[in-house]
Amino acid sequence: MTDFDVIIRGGTVVTATDTMRADVGIRAGKIVSLSDKLTGAAKTIDASGLLVMPGGIDSHVHLAQPAFGGPAMADGFETGTRSAIAGGTTTVIPFALQPRGTSLRHAVTDYHREADGQSFCDYGFHLIISDPTASVLSQELPALVDDGYTSFKVFMTYDDLVLNDRQLLDVFSCARDCKALVMVHCEGYDAIKFMTERLESAGKTAPYYHALSRPESVEREATHRAISHAELTDVPIMVVHVSGREPMEQIRWAQNKGLKIYAETCPQYVALTADDLKGLNMDESGGKYICSPPPRDEQSWDAIWSGIQTGVFQTFSSDHCPFYYEGSEGKLNPKARTSFRWVPNGIPGVETRLQILYSKGVVEGRISVNEFVALTSTNHAKMYGLYPQKGSIGPGFDADIVLWDPSRREVISQSLMHHGADYTPYEGMAVVGWPVMTLLRGKVVAEDGRITGEKGDGQFLKRSLSPFAA
Amino acid sequence: MTDFDVIIRGGTVVTATDTMRADVGIRAGKIVSLSDKLTGAAKTIDASGLLVMPGGIDSHVHLAQPAFGGPAMADGFETGTRSAIAGGTTTVIPFALQPRGTSLRHAVTDYHREADGQSFCDYGFHLIISDPTASVLSQELPALVDDGYTSFKVFMTYDDLVLNDRQLLDVFSCARDCKALVMVHCEGYDAIKFMTERLESAGKTAPYYHALSRPESVEREATHRAISHAELTDVPIMVVHVSGREPMEQIRWAQNKGLKIYAETCPQYVALTADDLKGLNMDESGGKYICSPPPRDEQSWDAIWSGIQTGVFQTFSSDHCPFYYEGSEGKLNPKARTSFRWVPNGIPGVETRLQILYSKGVVEGRISVNEFVALTSTNHAKMYGLYPQKGSIGPGFDADIVLWDPSRREVISQSLMHHGADYTPYEGMAVVGWPVMTLLRGKVVAEDGRITGEKGDGQFLKRSLSPFAA
Amino acid sequence: MTDFDVIIRGGTVVTATDTMRADVGIRAGKIVSLSDKLTGAAKTIDASGLLVMPGGIDSHVHLAQPAFGGPAMADGFETGTRSAIAGGTTTVIPFALQPRGTSLRHAVTDYHREADGQSFCDYGFHLIISDPTASVLSQELPALVDDGYTSFKVFMTYDDLVLNDRQLLDVFSCARDCKALVMVHCEGYDAIKFMTERLESAGKTAPYYHALSRPESVEREATHRAISHAELTDVPIMVVHVSGREPMEQIRWAQNKGLKIYAETCPQYVALTADDLKGLNMDESGGKYICSPPPRDEQSWDAIWSGIQTGVFQTFSSDHCPFYYEGSEGKLNPKARTSFRWVPNGIPGVETRLQILYSKGVVEGRISVNEFVALTSTNHAKMYGLYPQKGSIGPGFDADIVLWDPSRREVISQSLMHHGADYTPYEGMAVVGWPVMTLLRGKVVAEDGRITGEKGDGQFLKRSLSPFAA
Amino acid sequence: MTDFDVIIRGGTVVTATDTMRADVGIRAGKIVSLSDKLTGAAKTIDASGLLVMPGGIDSHVHLAQPAFGGPAMADGFETGTRSAIAGGTTTVIPFALQPRGTSLRHAVTDYHREADGQSFCDYGFHLIISDPTASVLSQELPALVDDGYTSFKVFMTYDDLVLNDRQLLDVFSCARDCKALVMVHCEGYDAIKFMTERLESAGKTAPYYHALSRPESVEREATHRAISHAELTDVPIMVVHVSGREPMEQIRWAQNKGLKIYAETCPQYVALTADDLKGLNMDESGGKYICSPPPRDEQSWDAIWSGIQTGVFQTFSSDHCPFYYEGSEGKLNPKARTSFRWVPNGIPGVETRLQILYSKGVVEGRISVNEFVALTSTNHAKMYGLYPQKGSIGPGFDADIVLWDPSRREVISQSLMHHGADYTPYEGMAVVGWPVMTLLRGKVVAEDGRITGEKGDGQFLKRSLSPFAA
Repeated sequence: MTDFDVIIRGGTVVTATDTMRADVGIRAGKIVSLSDKLTGAAKTIDASGLLVMPGGIDSHVHLAQPAFGGPAMADGFETGTRSAIAGGTTTVIPFALQPRGTSLRHAVTDYHREADGQSFCDYGFHLIISDPTASVLSQELPALVDDGYTSFKVFMTYDDLVLNDRQLLDVFSCARDCKALVMVHCEGYDAIKFMTERLESAGKTAPYYHALSRPESVEREATHRAISHAELTDVPIMVVHVSGREPMEQIRWAQNKGLKIYAETCPQYVALTADDLKGLNMDESGGKYICSPPPRDEQSWDAIWSGIQTGVFQTFSSDHCPFYYEGSEGKLNPKARTSFRWVPNGIPGVETRLQILYSKGVVEGRISVNEFVALTSTNHAKMYGLYPQKGSIGPGFDADIVLWDPSRREVISQSLMHHGADYTPYEGMAVVGWPVMTLLRGKVVAEDGRITGEKGDGQFLKRSLSPFAA
Repeated sequence: MTDFDVIIRGGTVVTATDTMRADVGIRAGKIVSLSDKLTGAAKTIDASGLLVMPGGIDSHVHLAQPAFGGPAMADGFETGTRSAIAGGTTTVIPFALQPRGTSLRHAVTDYHREADGQSFCDYGFHLIISDPTASVLSQELPALVDDGYTSFKVFMTYDDLVLNDRQLLDVFSCARDCKALVMVHCEGYDAIKFMTERLESAGKTAPYYHALSRPESVEREATHRAISHAELTDVPIMVVHVSGREPMEQIRWAQNKGLKIYAETCPQYVALTADDLKGLNMDESGGKYICSPPPRDEQSWDAIWSGIQTGVFQTFSSDHCPFYYEGSEGKLNPKARTSFRWVPNGIPGVETRLQILYSKGVVEGRISVNEFVALTSTNHAKMYGLYPQKGSIGPGFDADIVLWDPSRREVISQSLMHHGADYTPYEGMAVVGWPVMTLLRGKVVAEDGRITGEKGDGQFLKRSLSPFAA
Repeated sequence: MTDFDVIIRGGTVVTATDTMRADVGIRAGKIVSLSDKLTGAAKTIDASGLLVMPGGIDSHVHLAQPAFGGPAMADGFETGTRSAIAGGTTTVIPFALQPRGTSLRHAVTDYHREADGQSFCDYGFHLIISDPTASVLSQELPALVDDGYTSFKVFMTYDDLVLNDRQLLDVFSCARDCKALVMVHCEGYDAIKFMTERLESAGKTAPYYHALSRPESVEREATHRAISHAELTDVPIMVVHVSGREPMEQIRWAQNKGLKIYAETCPQYVALTADDLKGLNMDESGGKYICSPPPRDEQSWDAIWSGIQTGVFQTFSSDHCPFYYEGSEGKLNPKARTSFRWVPNGIPGVETRLQILYSKGVVEGRISVNEFVALTSTNHAKMYGLYPQKGSIGPGFDADIVLWDPSRREVISQSLMHHGADYTPYEGMAVVGWPVMTLLRGKVVAEDGRITGEKGDGQFLKRSLSPFAA
Repeated sequence: MTDFDVIIRGGTVVTATDTMRADVGIRAGKIVSLSDKLTGAAKTIDASGLLVMPGGIDSHVHLAQPAFGGPAMADGFETGTRSAIAGGTTTVIPFALQPRGTSLRHAVTDYHREADGQSFCDYGFHLIISDPTASVLSQELPALVDDGYTSFKVFMTYDDLVLNDRQLLDVFSCARDCKALVMVHCEGYDAIKFMTERLESAGKTAPYYHALSRPESVEREATHRAISHAELTDVPIMVVHVSGREPMEQIRWAQNKGLKIYAETCPQYVALTADDLKGLNMDESGGKYICSPPPRDEQSWDAIWSGIQTGVFQTFSSDHCPFYYEGSEGKLNPKARTSFRWVPNGIPGVETRLQILYSKGVVEGRISVNEFVALTSTNHAKMYGLYPQKGSIGPGFDADIVLWDPSRREVISQSLMHHGADYTPYEGMAVVGWPVMTLLRGKVVAEDGRITGEKGDGQFLKRSLSPFAA
């Protein structure tokens, strides 16, 4: 019982249910002991006064996605995962996106080419299905699920990605057969297009009108529709990035009916509002905040917190989807364009997810620190087939650990960030609680803002079937 | 104060709110007096022991619609309206259906050709929009509304009629501009098609599977979707033929939110169940009951009655849509086909609507006789721009009157019917309450099962804007 | 068909469902004819440009109730009913209140002594039961119902009136047996007392704290409790003076469950707010607005309108309950006292009920003029066993009629009032629509602000069983 | 890292969130290590194939309560806690009940006299307040909370215990000041009494009528009332022993409003129905199942499971409240009496709680094994101020552990029980999963049905303030 590789000594271990004074012993990348007092390691880390929590798992991250003629994404795997570990996140699950008319298997291969050897943290892939042909449904998807890509994602909007209802039903039905979990982006394509054209024809093209082009009722309708399709095909689904009361009430209604509908929310829905899209003096800096669904208002924050507290939501993800605002290295300057229609939808956030939830949730008394761990790590691992390899602290789990200083005060700023984007939408937000060290399978990969890990430290995760899927 | 053309003497006049002993004086096709005692008419009708009610208005009737390669409809204007007056209904509002790729104005002209001079009762037309082109939306519809076609109908299912969400939004938006009222058939096309193919591939083709191919959740989803589109475009809509609790709860929810959502239900949803589609010994007679949405179950009857009692529903219509079962005069035998997919959707009912509602509603104590009048006549007139010409009994209204024997017992039977179809789905149903005389603008057009009116008695009704539209 | 006593010529007759150009013929106090044109009367009234509506029925009016050691009520039957007819109301149903320890029959006798020969309009009595002894329940109430006192009222608060749950259940059970309709004042006694003491001990005694002493949750709780007791005893009840969304949602929930729960609201809940209780500079004029439940806020107005529009409410009453503010003729000056606890609960309103509903409802587009008639007259008649004697315009109804000028603009002011109180809480409110003549059984009793009727014109109404009771 | 007193080797440790293969090291009654492999203990227990879970905490147990003239309770501390440890429960929180007219402090002293030195497991006390006098509220309760009695219980029914609404408000208000958590028994006293008298007067006295005397609407009403009082006084409450959908929906509604309402359910509400009260051939064996609220029906089971799954409920307790059926040692024979009114309300269950939840919950797939731990142990500890001393497995927790054989099949039978009662209401129920060893602070106190601990092993627990209280 000697010979640990690493001992984390003197900290307070936090799991999704427990908080305990314990030392953590690590051997060969795994946690092997939680004890009142451990000795005998090659390396001992002093965690006095710190929380010892499972590394964050961010199950909703976009990296290295293709431009489709639009601007390039600001993060590939290298910068995106560097940003993740700096923020205390040790596993990300980005998307392998099938361009229409292509093989999903090829897409997966392409994404591996982007990721393998480039990542600072561990990673898996969800499969974005944009073209559910017979061969995709009957051959590729079952094989990919067998290979550890055990979750799908479908979109109810976006020109290049939207599935019609029949396609949704076919994918849901396939997911039921494969026992895959389907994530659904719920916003109604036609309604958004209708509103966008109406706004544009009225000359309303500033960033703020992005929010008006997709009001909460449009998200609510799509949410109800996705739930109905899930009911018809008898398959669980995960409704991602829920923004406010109206869609949330649909989810709660479905859960109360006994349907297996899961839900995710994100920092932008408790920290930003549509007014942020107005920018200074209604200039174009509002473009920095364009994401979909758009942030709503402060009443929506309350609604989302209520949903977190009453169990509507299982996961709190970043929906990290970074684009340049001013542009960089000769690249396009997309966020500053003058019409909201052409501004790419998405904001960076993988590095600030934990701090925002900790500060607004734990410090402000809305959730316990254990619920924080559940929402940022454990539930992601369980929902997406990474448990019990990932997601908690105890013998047998990967030694993916974040040391958290619960009393550290910081102001979020682009100067602190490690992502590729040239801004953070949370610039200037004061927070309490900050990650001071990140370990990936026992290796210290980030320490107080410095990256100590290396590109390639991260491994691909072949995921098990989700116990929450069919 | 003498010189009435007709006096109806000794009856009990019933309006949507009042019940009173009064004689009714008619002159030049109009009611001119309600008085305790009237004398001095060319013709006096003894209404002792009878209820004197406004003639039924059936705002949901399909007549003479094209076959689209399928079987011919069993009723044109002659037989359909003959059936109406025999059943106490003096006004029908069938549909002028635009085949895709054609002009709606031409469709209206075509339907007038079918109707004009052929009808036993008065009639207007709703406009079925299957192809909302720019010229239809910007030119034809505004002009047609001006000409008295003040209501639209759109379908969310059926190959030849379904509109996608964008088209629905465009039509709703147009309706808002035109101040037309939009009726919506709420069932989800893709979901039905998905289920139909699944059932067929499992060999489940008997009529009963029609009901399984479009369960209540499919109607509920489309209802929610239509409501959301109405909310987005800020326009009132009328959800037609609501079949059960789930879609009804969506409507109530919307009404409680302050949205102007109106609703209709029909006899089949309080008198038939999906089990009727099983037929005798699971043979094909179940085809007689195929309509859409399908009848549900007896719990749904209770739900619908609750909705009637608490004000969810404004109108009770037949959705008369007749087809032959055994065939007739060499015509196709559509209802007896062996696969539900090809059985035309619809059942006859214009002649039995009043009896079923009176018997199950008034006689069984669920509604008052005044609510009966509201649901079968007054509310239709108000909702569809026929009021105050039609819909009540008092000075100034058209003398469209049904004399009703509240204690007469009958058993509904094909032998009593005047429609073109070769069966009634209500065969064998015992009812209490029966129309014994029908007057159209003061002329006795039906008397105790005999038709005394003539083809061409009925006039086209140029309707006003609905006060319930935008 | 000649020889009418009175003809009202040229007006627009409005019933709860219809609006029609018609002359009204009256003979022997009854309406005998509605016709396009009538001639031959002793007296002809020109109603050109006016609405001819059934006289208002106010089913919630407090007159001549005992002081219980507190201040005298500002209206007995003479002034209260004079005020009623001036305001277009021709029937009131005040309360015969049983003081504890006394016989209810004696109370009824006492109230008749106050009313008989003193009233300007017709009247009945509801029975307030404050002491449901065995003899009251088993003997007095059945006999009184037989004598035409067919509705009860019970209170869930007020020291002298509150019934405990067991007493409520006993009265509800008795009402079921007697087929009487029970009106329930739903506010929780203990909660109010608890809050009152807490406020007083904090020195919060200004009128405004009356509203804080009985918040909406207290009304909601009592409403839920009354509904539950009604469910247990299987008896319909009428929840009176509903003030806002929370209690209203309980009623809608019960109605949706199929329970027979009826509801009333009042002008103060769409025209006053709790802020009115603050008075000028927080002085004591707020006492003028003290009534129970207290007015809430403008969001509550919206909620109440939504309830009116969706059918939650059947009646719109005044809850006229007048007290002096400055005092009069040496009488006590109750409303100006300095502690809310001792200010009598109630405001005058019988004379302004119709104008407020017409102006805010019909003129501002929230309800139709027919709904106005239903809410102010017809539904009261039907609910409380006065129909078909009262409540509409047609052959056979009492000729209780108000001629209404729909375009007349007035500002409500104490100087226009005919009640006994020394103020109106609606002082300064601009309205559109005003009663210009009132007929009671064919006699003109008020004309443009002048009283032309006499004390004693009003008759006692022996009421039938309510068709809405058990 | 040597020198453990006990090692539990080879088992699968289960916490409220995690499941992990780990050895457990115990020293001085505390868990000190969870590790992949531990050696060096005085005693090693082989847990291969077993689950190692925190010992059950049963926060709702009645022991040694006074007879109030009725029959003696079948369990004092000795037999009741013996039964607890045999069933895998290591902590109970029974009640110290204040008889009216007495001091609560004296009651606590009396209960300590019953418990101290007699208990096989650890214990605390909730305070039942039957007489909230000024001195109880202002002096005794604050002092008792300081002494570790940090939760209250109040009753809304039962002759000897019922508080009126004012008393409830006073206790809630006191709890807010003391930061105590209030448990509420929600059933309406007056309604039950009303129904009981009605049933008795109809000769309906068999045990089954107990269920009819307190239907779900009576529990729902009281639940709504308690919630409203909690809202008014701004204090969290715990609604205990929720029996079905109607009260549960009130709780969910309150939780969704943001109120801090917690809830408990019990085995009887997922394993018994009102039909059990009918007994064999309607004889009196139904008396064995009389408890309050009464078990409902199988639809209610589904509702309760739904509430468990969606987070309505935090705790699953036994509400162990044992009485003799046939009698024993010359004692009264209460459960076999012939009138339900006099049968004491309550059933034994402390020994079968875990098996029923495991079998119906985990084995039948309704909850995870982690949720099982949360519902039976962790959440009780957190809710009632025992955490982090009790409620999980990890360094620092008391070594209260149950070894659970997840595949053992048993049939529940009185012959297996260790309680004082002469029957179990679950006789004959087949279960999967059984406790095979129980450790209390490191000492083996029960092993495979044999009691190895001793009277007096159990210690009194001075509890902290609940983090869920105000």
